[in-house]
Amino acid sequence: MTCGLTPLTVSTLLSGLRSEPPLVQCLTNTVVTNFTANVLLALGAAPAMTDIPGEAGPFARLASGVLINLGTPHAEQRTAMLEAANAANDAGTPWVLDPVAVGSLPVRTALAAELLELRPTAIRANASEVMALAGLGAGGRGVDATDTAEDALPAAALLAQKYGSIVAVSGPTDVITDGVSTVRISNGDALLTRVTGGGCALGAVTAAFLAVADGAVADDGADIRGRLAAVAAATAVYTLAAELAARQAAGPGSFVPAFLDALANLAAEDIDAKLVAA
Amino acid sequence: MTCGLTPLTVSTLLSGLRSEPPLVQCLTNTVVTNFTANVLLALGAAPAMTDIPGEAGPFARLASGVLINLGTPHAEQRTAMLEAANAANDAGTPWVLDPVAVGSLPVRTALAAELLELRPTAIRANASEVMALAGLGAGGRGVDATDTAEDALPAAALLAQKYGSIVAVSGPTDVITDGVSTVRISNGDALLTRVTGGGCALGAVTAAFLAVADGAVADDGADIRGRLAAVAAATAVYTLAAELAARQAAGPGSFVPAFLDALANLAAEDIDAKLVAA
Amino acid sequence: MTCGLTPLTVSTLLSGLRSEPPLVQCLTNTVVTNFTANVLLALGAAPAMTDIPGEAGPFARLASGVLINLGTPHAEQRTAMLEAANAANDAGTPWVLDPVAVGSLPVRTALAAELLELRPTAIRANASEVMALAGLGAGGRGVDATDTAEDALPAAALLAQKYGSIVAVSGPTDVITDGVSTVRISNGDALLTRVTGGGCALGAVTAAFLAVADGAVADDGADIRGRLAAVAAATAVYTLAAELAARQAAGPGSFVPAFLDALANLAAEDIDAKLVAA
Repeated sequence: MTCGLTPLTVSTLLSGLRSEPPLVQCLTNTVVTNFTANVLLALGAAPAMTDIPGEAGPFARLASGVLINLGTPHAEQRTAMLEAANAANDAGTPWVLDPVAVGSLPVRTALAAELLELRPTAIRANASEVMALAGLGAGGRGVDATDTAEDALPAAALLAQKYGSIVAVSGPTDVITDGVSTVRISNGDALLTRVTGGGCALGAVTAAFLAVADGAVADDGADIRGRLAAVAAATAVYTLAAELAARQAAGPGSFVPAFLDALANLAAEDIDAKLVAA
Repeated sequence: MTCGLTPLTVSTLLSGLRSEPPLVQCLTNTVVTNFTANVLLALGAAPAMTDIPGEAGPFARLASGVLINLGTPHAEQRTAMLEAANAANDAGTPWVLDPVAVGSLPVRTALAAELLELRPTAIRANASEVMALAGLGAGGRGVDATDTAEDALPAAALLAQKYGSIVAVSGPTDVITDGVSTVRISNGDALLTRVTGGGCALGAVTAAFLAVADGAVADDGADIRGRLAAVAAATAVYTLAAELAARQAAGPGSFVPAFLDALANLAAEDIDAKLVAA
Repeated sequence: MTCGLTPLTVSTLLSGLRSEPPLVQCLTNTVVTNFTANVLLALGAAPAMTDIPGEAGPFARLASGVLINLGTPHAEQRTAMLEAANAANDAGTPWVLDPVAVGSLPVRTALAAELLELRPTAIRANASEVMALAGLGAGGRGVDATDTAEDALPAAALLAQKYGSIVAVSGPTDVITDGVSTVRISNGDALLTRVTGGGCALGAVTAAFLAVADGAVADDGADIRGRLAAVAAATAVYTLAAELAARQAAGPGSFVPAFLDALANLAAEDIDAKLVAA
């Protein structure tokens, strides 16, 4: 079953984001904090990187959306992440888990398992990470960096069904599923993989779009179709901006400013003309 | 009473900075370290991000100026910040406090109150933060993110008088006061607010200009008028560079490299032609 | 005795890197993580910033090369650095030490002395740092920021002989020695010193080239000539890219994207035409 993500849905959510900027709290890795904040600002959202114990929880109650990214999970940040996820759940704030490099590395793998039980609103990862994550709760064990997003769909659907999460698997074709319906988006450019944080910042954008959708639907969590569309729209906007930026770029260096400009300038006509979703 | 900041004052301090680069120690948040260091380098100053306990204090004795920014105040950094502020005071090194998001978040708010008692040479913040900070010591309580810098002038003046600090409030018109005289600068561009660290890096530039001014005046702290001019000149150079960069930029992405280039290339003629100060 | 680094050697190692991307683990300072990762990605290598205790060691066994940079050595990172260096030695993974600001600052100076005893595969530093580092083990004491790389050659040779390390000293002319043979490279551009991480990221590139060379030689550590060539080739590629980028740049801001593009696009013809090595 396909979801039928339309250019209109994407444009409407993007307009909503720009007219009422969501406050997105990011507990993310030290490598990509700057890029992630700039991506959110370019898009029109308001970033805040509040990630220390004693502040992460209170802030998650005020935030419109939360990203938890496990790239460099130092001890204080691990405490803050659990604090933020619990507070987000209490307050009904949507939150996104990005389980970077989960599977073989012991500290983050244990933390990811703990966070999974808190039922993230969405999970964004590459194929290998989704398969490793599914293995944490479901007995699987295969991790292969050469897997495509499509290969990870069964694991993604399993995670979605078990934890009530939307699962977005990044790849040349992105696959986004709620465990029943699946959206595939074939925009983007390989330059996004030649820049650090290309995937990580999408997690923050996903939290921003979930915040917009949450504001538009009943907050009892029932509108999971609205959330699937929101996560897919985040991926669509992000990869469309990458596609437009790649045309201006002479390499990965000039791609970064072009990408941020494209996020700021992306218009409904670009979405109409370029979106490849099924 | 206005201070009468002239283009010549600004140019003279900028030339002084470039001919004898101040060493600026930054204890700042993880989001903006890179941008802050690049802003200082582009300007002509020498950055050093020494922010661990046991090193922050000794380094503050050698540094020309110190920035303490509370954006992501992890435990080790909090210890290092108090160490650096005390050592700076002992050594007569000027230091700048940037109380990011002070008011509602408990950890940084307690730390800001403690640092305030150490009498920062300057405080740089937005209107809401200045009003929250004044409330810490003076019974105020109002914080509203929509306040203009002018709205925060009474709070800024109160802080300036109580702690002997120059207080710079950022906004479309920047307001800088020593509690008696006030300078208003109306340069800049909204793109500076679409880039993370747009305010934070100004705190580091402020420390750099205070270092230059301190080198030029008696070090008994009496020349507060010299310090007011230094803080105002920092704001002037920074916002003028932003204004020039915005003309080259197609969005927030291309604004960043253009801004760094503009800081490096800013000339006396640009200051003469463009400065809007009163 | 000169090593005779040829354009062909440099091109061959660069091709090897691009065809089989080494996984480079970086335990580096918070200021330059993003730039360092982007430099490695632009070059064609795969970065991973795994730097927490309990993960740094296991990861160093899998990595192709490791960088340990002492710029902001927080407590957890110090533990992780020792863990990574020991694991790298166990597994035969080449690792690079960048002893940022060693000498006067007590925490990193003690850590550098400890790491030195673990015999880094290579050391990359400026002249002052190399002289300070040699002093740690050899009774020297002079540190002068105005020293040239050539001034530091005796200290570099001493370190190389004592610890079996290749020592690369950065400067307008870079000097690289194994304690017997010495390579001098006179490429580069002063803009590289106007950007934060200009030296730090070269440490990561050095680890990447050592990984390529290690893959090509016997792993008994005997081929120190191969390692000298690898470290020299890393410096050559890096400074050649800087030289090409500087022609496109209007200042330090536009230099950064141009430099990353140049790393991605550097071709054998550029190396043939521009390399100045002796």
